[in-house]
Amino acid sequence: MRKENVSMAVIRRMPKYYRYLDELYQNGIQKISSRALAEQMGLTASQIRQDFNCFGGFGQQGYGYNVDTLREQVASIIGIDRTHSAVILGVGNIGRALIRNFNFVQCGFQLLAAFDTDTSIVGDVIHQIPVLPVDEMDAFIRENKVEVAILTIPAAFAKATAERLSDLGVKGIWNFTNVELQVKNPSVTVENVHFSDSMMTLCYQISED
Amino acid sequence: MRKENVSMAVIRRMPKYYRYLDELYQNGIQKISSRALAEQMGLTASQIRQDFNCFGGFGQQGYGYNVDTLREQVASIIGIDRTHSAVILGVGNIGRALIRNFNFVQCGFQLLAAFDTDTSIVGDVIHQIPVLPVDEMDAFIRENKVEVAILTIPAAFAKATAERLSDLGVKGIWNFTNVELQVKNPSVTVENVHFSDSMMTLCYQISED
Repeated sequence: MRKENVSMAVIRRMPKYYRYLDELYQNGIQKISSRALAEQMGLTASQIRQDFNCFGGFGQQGYGYNVDTLREQVASIIGIDRTHSAVILGVGNIGRALIRNFNFVQCGFQLLAAFDTDTSIVGDVIHQIPVLPVDEMDAFIRENKVEVAILTIPAAFAKATAERLSDLGVKGIWNFTNVELQVKNPSVTVENVHFSDSMMTLCYQISED
Repeated sequence: MRKENVSMAVIRRMPKYYRYLDELYQNGIQKISSRALAEQMGLTASQIRQDFNCFGGFGQQGYGYNVDTLREQVASIIGIDRTHSAVILGVGNIGRALIRNFNFVQCGFQLLAAFDTDTSIVGDVIHQIPVLPVDEMDAFIRENKVEVAILTIPAAFAKATAERLSDLGVKGIWNFTNVELQVKNPSVTVENVHFSDSMMTLCYQISED
């Protein structure tokens, strides 16, 4: 179902489709037209059809989408129907918030462990996730073939840590350090979380002309 | 410089432009062609020209952009050249992380206060921000004409709190509760932060075909 050369704009809409479809599904809605889905999501119906055509297209003109089926197809496109492994580096406020509140399973991930340099929290278990010493990280990542590392460490360590993770064989880095990261190995994906982009978008919308 | 009917896709690219232009500026780069900027940002040169045309267009064909000027123009479009007021509701892990680490000033905001129901932290001062009791919130927001409220409270309280904030006259809500919020008053903007969209995008990219 995957296609090459799908634009990042389309890829970034997929989680949003999943979010809306999942809500419809949870509310017991079985069918929805592309027009109704478009209205709810603030897109156009033709945009939605184009997006799904990137993955082969689903639904039949005039019949609308079967919510349950489309939801599963989108889940499969995103890859959340499989389980990927993740660890978290840095158990500060953001790290702790993610461990406690983020629904990793819903996003296709199993969080295996957290790592920190602070000996006063190493050994703790937060929400069933063990906090391990950072000098066990390399062996743990290699042995468990960890796919994704979540960076919630101070910005100063971001770049070097990302390269080290890349060398250890992770496929992806979820970066909360506010440093725009790229790693040398092109097969490692970095997803930079920019709170400031979101806050600036809000700034635009509340600012007077 | 503002225009009506600029699409959200264009608006959402503005903070990204600012981020890249600011980095060029910090590195002492004075001129950049739309092509070079496009390459760095993973866009096309024509996309960049189209985006800026939404706001009147800057730069002259063949001469490239003056980094300093364009950075200031983008700042003005976004509204971060003015100072907007904000308060934060909920001093849990995410709230605390934002107070400590988020650069509000760079995003055009001054954080005035934080509110929490937990009497054991009310009275604390975190990074010069006072933690006030939640029953002082209404008066504080009205008296200080607070423009934006940042929601880092438990999801269960999100909807009711958002409506209350809307009644109190805030213009925007920055929502970290993982609940997709809308408020009845259409003039109040809600910016929902969805960590899951970001994690799912990463999931897509690391998943095998």
